[in-house]
Amino acid sequence: MAVGPYKGHSGGRHKAAVGVAPAKKYFSFDPTYINLNHGSYGSVPSPVAEAIKPMVDLVESNPDKFHRFEGMTMVVESRERLSEFIGIGKERVDEVVFVPNASHGINTVLRNFIWEEGDILLDCNTTYGSVGSTIKYITDVPPHPKVSQFIMLFPTTRAKILGDWRIHVRSLQQTRVQSSSSPGGLPKIVAIIDSIISAPAAQLPWVEMIQILREECGNGAGKDSGVKSNVWTVIDAAHSIGHEVDLPAKIALGDPDFLITNCYKWMYTKRGCAVLYVPKRNQHIIKTTLPTSGAYIPLDKRTEEGEGFVDMFSWTGAIDFIPYLSVIPALQFRSWLGGEKKINDYCRKIAKEGARKMAEIFGLGEGEWGIGEEELELNMVNIPFPFPPSASFTPLVNKQIDTLFRKKMLLERNMFVVDWYHNGKWWVRCSGQVFLEIEDFEVARAVVDVCKEITEELALDKLEGKGA
Amino acid sequence: MAVGPYKGHSGGRHKAAVGVAPAKKYFSFDPTYINLNHGSYGSVPSPVAEAIKPMVDLVESNPDKFHRFEGMTMVVESRERLSEFIGIGKERVDEVVFVPNASHGINTVLRNFIWEEGDILLDCNTTYGSVGSTIKYITDVPPHPKVSQFIMLFPTTRAKILGDWRIHVRSLQQTRVQSSSSPGGLPKIVAIIDSIISAPAAQLPWVEMIQILREECGNGAGKDSGVKSNVWTVIDAAHSIGHEVDLPAKIALGDPDFLITNCYKWMYTKRGCAVLYVPKRNQHIIKTTLPTSGAYIPLDKRTEEGEGFVDMFSWTGAIDFIPYLSVIPALQFRSWLGGEKKINDYCRKIAKEGARKMAEIFGLGEGEWGIGEEELELNMVNIPFPFPPSASFTPLVNKQIDTLFRKKMLLERNMFVVDWYHNGKWWVRCSGQVFLEIEDFEVARAVVDVCKEITEELALDKLEGKGA
Repeated sequence: MAVGPYKGHSGGRHKAAVGVAPAKKYFSFDPTYINLNHGSYGSVPSPVAEAIKPMVDLVESNPDKFHRFEGMTMVVESRERLSEFIGIGKERVDEVVFVPNASHGINTVLRNFIWEEGDILLDCNTTYGSVGSTIKYITDVPPHPKVSQFIMLFPTTRAKILGDWRIHVRSLQQTRVQSSSSPGGLPKIVAIIDSIISAPAAQLPWVEMIQILREECGNGAGKDSGVKSNVWTVIDAAHSIGHEVDLPAKIALGDPDFLITNCYKWMYTKRGCAVLYVPKRNQHIIKTTLPTSGAYIPLDKRTEEGEGFVDMFSWTGAIDFIPYLSVIPALQFRSWLGGEKKINDYCRKIAKEGARKMAEIFGLGEGEWGIGEEELELNMVNIPFPFPPSASFTPLVNKQIDTLFRKKMLLERNMFVVDWYHNGKWWVRCSGQVFLEIEDFEVARAVVDVCKEITEELALDKLEGKGA
Repeated sequence: MAVGPYKGHSGGRHKAAVGVAPAKKYFSFDPTYINLNHGSYGSVPSPVAEAIKPMVDLVESNPDKFHRFEGMTMVVESRERLSEFIGIGKERVDEVVFVPNASHGINTVLRNFIWEEGDILLDCNTTYGSVGSTIKYITDVPPHPKVSQFIMLFPTTRAKILGDWRIHVRSLQQTRVQSSSSPGGLPKIVAIIDSIISAPAAQLPWVEMIQILREECGNGAGKDSGVKSNVWTVIDAAHSIGHEVDLPAKIALGDPDFLITNCYKWMYTKRGCAVLYVPKRNQHIIKTTLPTSGAYIPLDKRTEEGEGFVDMFSWTGAIDFIPYLSVIPALQFRSWLGGEKKINDYCRKIAKEGARKMAEIFGLGEGEWGIGEEELELNMVNIPFPFPPSASFTPLVNKQIDTLFRKKMLLERNMFVVDWYHNGKWWVRCSGQVFLEIEDFEVARAVVDVCKEITEELALDKLEGKGA
């Protein structure tokens, strides 16, 4: 069942785009809640929520017909729209499958490699929590591949990131060549690279990072470099779809081996819904799904490597398929709202203005906020906390600060920005979104109060130099 | 946020149970659809669907507050209710965690074992498709543990199953002892045993099977036998909760090492929602979740084995938590409907009567239907297809029969029973449910017609003896 033309939240058909600012009326927030954190969990627009209700009814009207026929067709339609949306085109729909979220997609990829002693997982100090945990788990169990961690400290610049990256991967390649005793070739390198880091919210030059990695560790760039050089790139694009508007161009240019992106964040679907993009040439790596599907073909029965890739992902156990089917309503709503450029121009604009406003309220001067060059930020912006300069940040104290901040902001004040610690400072991350107006960034005043309260409650001034 | 007293589908509070027969009005089926297959996907009762709507609104009213605070508390409440419901009591709530479905839970267990060469996965010829695929995948990749398959052919008896099982596991133990060269002890045996087989729908004597396995392969029964003897039992109880009414007694008696049961089938929650039960003594086996959680504690940082078990399962990536939160409304609805005994007495009664009616319509005499002893069946019943006795069943033909049967029943006739092949025959499996009346089993007449059509279209009579 295809979803018909988008009819708007009121049920009537709108003939023209409405623009995007401010579109709070299309979301279902508690009217007293100020949401400066779209980045973590996303928010389902009410028109999307309305559009999926008939699908829920359809499922329950005949669960067998839905799960054996109708629903499966609808999932294919959603995948087709997504393959167009990420620029690879409908004809390559079989390179795009659904997983519930980026963590699930990254686990699917990383746990499908046949790890051998000496293999290397290349991550960053800014790798997302659960992804870092996944890497740690893989190294914790036999045959214990190793981790090589690339360090980025913000504020910084694209040039510095790329320069440091080249040095890091060149050194890694030297180690790999020297340590290799395998007659079968070099140990594998699997690089996990963020497109947009979660904290600090920084857009990485990931296309160039792939290219440099292939130059230094591969035998030349190009489509087959992964196979020939045993170097593989996994792009954690959790925040990209619906946010990084040049994602299609970047996928074409960077040609990543695997890419995972969450639709429920910036693209406005229901949670959990994510895309796992695996070009045909790498589908043989993904031997099974998480969990393994009834459609799994034993490896010795496959007539070609990668056989059955899409079939396996089509059914991995009973789930609610509605999040996957919310893709088309979400894209229709986005189109009706003005389209990707208009939406993201507004999100970027309000985020930038909001960051400036917050910095002013925090009493920060020009150059005292942000993570470096402007182009490192997209719709999420980063501003340091207004803690006293002498505030103490030991791990124990940091944990206390985090707990207190969340409670004071969310439960006591009904407003939220994400808090995080990086490079000796606490920061807030604000998400620019179509439901925000500049006044919403007055939340900064509450942050100032909360910082004062935390400083007092934890006696941060007096802790100076005591912790470890 | 606790869910208040169950208010019924109309919003009013009912003072007395309504009984269960026929309760079709509490489900949202297409009125022209006849659903004899509750077993595959379950069906969400409309009062449960209504009860979860305010929860959906709650999530979107403040996604951060829900995912960081309210929702997490509600999940704990659901787990508490489930730990009471399966009879281990609220005080052992930390032995009960959520996974989306049984396949996910079984994968979580089987993929967490550190497999070594010579280890053995013990399954059955009747093991569910995706579970069999999971076992195959594990043996397909290094270090390639082996499979030992126990064969059951229905119709049969409990006595024969248990006798054959003892012979099988005794022989397996002899092989294990003889082949072991490891100074560290015997290779592990991980037995995957169904509580209720999916096809044929048979209730296995799983408590006795655990006991026999421990007698033959362990060093005596009891809580620690798994650890001492390196024998582990994984109970695929996909169909049990809300169906096998003596599940609490059986868990207490059999003391399985791991048990997984789907709440979205017989217990009436939203898909997907399943319980993974892991007694404290075995939580060290479950080193990580699928996918790995941000709460994963590196193995060398754990102060005790199994540390962080519940925390890991509390957040494995963004999902829709509503299926997990539908547990309390589902249990309230079941209680209001008359309670577990009343519901299951009706389901069993209608299934038995329905099977008899179907057999009559199929022209089968006494003793020509069912899978053996009556106590092998619960709410799902099994009746052989009315194919001509000479019908040919090669693998290719079987695939064609399956495809045609599903299309003809669901798409052409808007009614369904599950079809499956076992021991040289095709069978239908009907699910007794509170929404069914005896007249619904007139579906058998359509099955007769469909069989005639398939026999004709595939020229089954003429294929006799030709296939392979």
